[in-house]
Amino acid sequence: MNQVNQEQEILKKFFHPLAKNKEALELKNDAAYLFKKKKMVVSSDMMIEGKHFDKNYDPKILARKLLRVNLSDIAAMGAIPYGYTLNIAIPKRNHHNWLKRFTSGLKLDGNKFGLKLFGGDLSESSKIFMSATIFGFVKNNFHKKLCVSDGSEIFVGGNIGDAALGFEFLRDRKKKTDSKNFFLKKLYLPDPQITLGISILGIAEFCTDISDGLISELHLISQNSNLKANIFLKDIPLSKNTKKEIIETKDKKKKWEVILTGGEDYKLLFSVKQNKLNLLKKKKLKNIKKIGYFSQGRGVDLYDLSKKKINLKKKGFCHF
Amino acid sequence: MNQVNQEQEILKKFFHPLAKNKEALELKNDAAYLFKKKKMVVSSDMMIEGKHFDKNYDPKILARKLLRVNLSDIAAMGAIPYGYTLNIAIPKRNHHNWLKRFTSGLKLDGNKFGLKLFGGDLSESSKIFMSATIFGFVKNNFHKKLCVSDGSEIFVGGNIGDAALGFEFLRDRKKKTDSKNFFLKKLYLPDPQITLGISILGIAEFCTDISDGLISELHLISQNSNLKANIFLKDIPLSKNTKKEIIETKDKKKKWEVILTGGEDYKLLFSVKQNKLNLLKKKKLKNIKKIGYFSQGRGVDLYDLSKKKINLKKKGFCHF
Repeated sequence: MNQVNQEQEILKKFFHPLAKNKEALELKNDAAYLFKKKKMVVSSDMMIEGKHFDKNYDPKILARKLLRVNLSDIAAMGAIPYGYTLNIAIPKRNHHNWLKRFTSGLKLDGNKFGLKLFGGDLSESSKIFMSATIFGFVKNNFHKKLCVSDGSEIFVGGNIGDAALGFEFLRDRKKKTDSKNFFLKKLYLPDPQITLGISILGIAEFCTDISDGLISELHLISQNSNLKANIFLKDIPLSKNTKKEIIETKDKKKKWEVILTGGEDYKLLFSVKQNKLNLLKKKKLKNIKKIGYFSQGRGVDLYDLSKKKINLKKKGFCHF
Repeated sequence: MNQVNQEQEILKKFFHPLAKNKEALELKNDAAYLFKKKKMVVSSDMMIEGKHFDKNYDPKILARKLLRVNLSDIAAMGAIPYGYTLNIAIPKRNHHNWLKRFTSGLKLDGNKFGLKLFGGDLSESSKIFMSATIFGFVKNNFHKKLCVSDGSEIFVGGNIGDAALGFEFLRDRKKKTDSKNFFLKKLYLPDPQITLGISILGIAEFCTDISDGLISELHLISQNSNLKANIFLKDIPLSKNTKKEIIETKDKKKKWEVILTGGEDYKLLFSVKQNKLNLLKKKKLKNIKKIGYFSQGRGVDLYDLSKKKINLKKKGFCHF
């Protein structure tokens, strides 16, 4: 088999079964054809070996996380998942098994979230590199992350900090608790909040996913709006496991720092103006939680369990 | 300045000036908004340090090549360039200068080809990794790369082999000829044939860009169509410099092998059915050249200058 055929065989074996949609044109063209003439949002995220994961990660988990990280951006826009293009560069050694696991992950979460594979690019590389560009449909409205208003209330879509604690477990392999698997699962497989993003269209004033940590996202929107975010630790929703971690640790402030700045949560963070709070209430959304409000000022003020203002050293996670 | 601000400063300084379009939403959202409700094509290509270029490449050239490689896919579909998303991972060392050069390249070719930056992702990495996803508008028609017909004539959109010879010069730094710069420029800055792609809509039966080498592309379409491509070396358009290289080399067959299989040309390769040749003629297209025809059989038959059938060892370039 010559080299050209080898590339074609890989496409045929692993990727054609995922691309049985009209848009993909059987992966035989130089591009995919998006013929639906709808308004769309598009987002692109990458994951790099040594930066976002190490080489021992299960390729099936990597595939699912790559899709979910991108889906979370679709959720933050209040859009409906449509499809994606994929670029992957992987080492040649053992690539057959790697691709088998990887594409099984793509298939699983592609089906789960209604995502079609449109096309992409495959290359050999000493380190694993992956990037996906994801598309979502937009009807009449989407979440614009512009400015927030004085008095707007701040909400999150679920528990904060589990993924960040999972990341700590990864780095410190000796550490073992019963809840290790729980935290690792939260890190590996975030839940993109697609339904929530759509539910709060026309209600939320801004909406984003918490990819780089809660505090970091709040700083950004505070900067854009010239307002201050006031956040109360007692209102931040935590899993049972995370609560236990806080209780059992000596340096509680450091643990909170991890929870608030660690990133990778991919829960939605949004704000609602006073005059729209009733609309939100009527939606009877489960798992959302008010954690504070915006007021005159700048930056992010944090209040501890006794409502005393506290300072964190670290403000957020930065990929650069 | 904290880390989050640093990432924002980079975006503001280098990427905001390139993203002053409505779709990009000031790069402040989780996704870009493609509101135009038009039919589109989308393609995604990556370039990796050590595989597609070495670390000494000028970032300005890299940026332009990344756009052009992607634009070439738009050309092959007969589409009109619209915009792109960008993922780049680069080493932290000297990143300011790198980004300055890189974004100057994006600006130059973005303006030249009417491409808007919609958004993307930036990360730190020990090796440079880049990927772009490009969008083009489609009106009523685009090039479907399906099957070709017995008797269809095969055309290319310009000189073949210059980029491949440029690649040889890169690998063999001692080698010096007057034409070295010419070849390197052809390798660094391919010309996406946007206008040609559009001109032959409704005329060409299939159309692709020659990214992996002429022979390799012909093998693929031959395989899809169960037909044989008959190619005549005497008809393949060559630059003056390439002709000179052939004359001056001892191993002419090897040189031809590089020219025909080397890839990176990004000229369009297309076929036209007998009953559409008149339409093509009427277009009076410059620089296109008939190089052969399809007939019953399989694979690719090559005929030398005296019309004798020849065999090549290598069939094409493969990134995997």
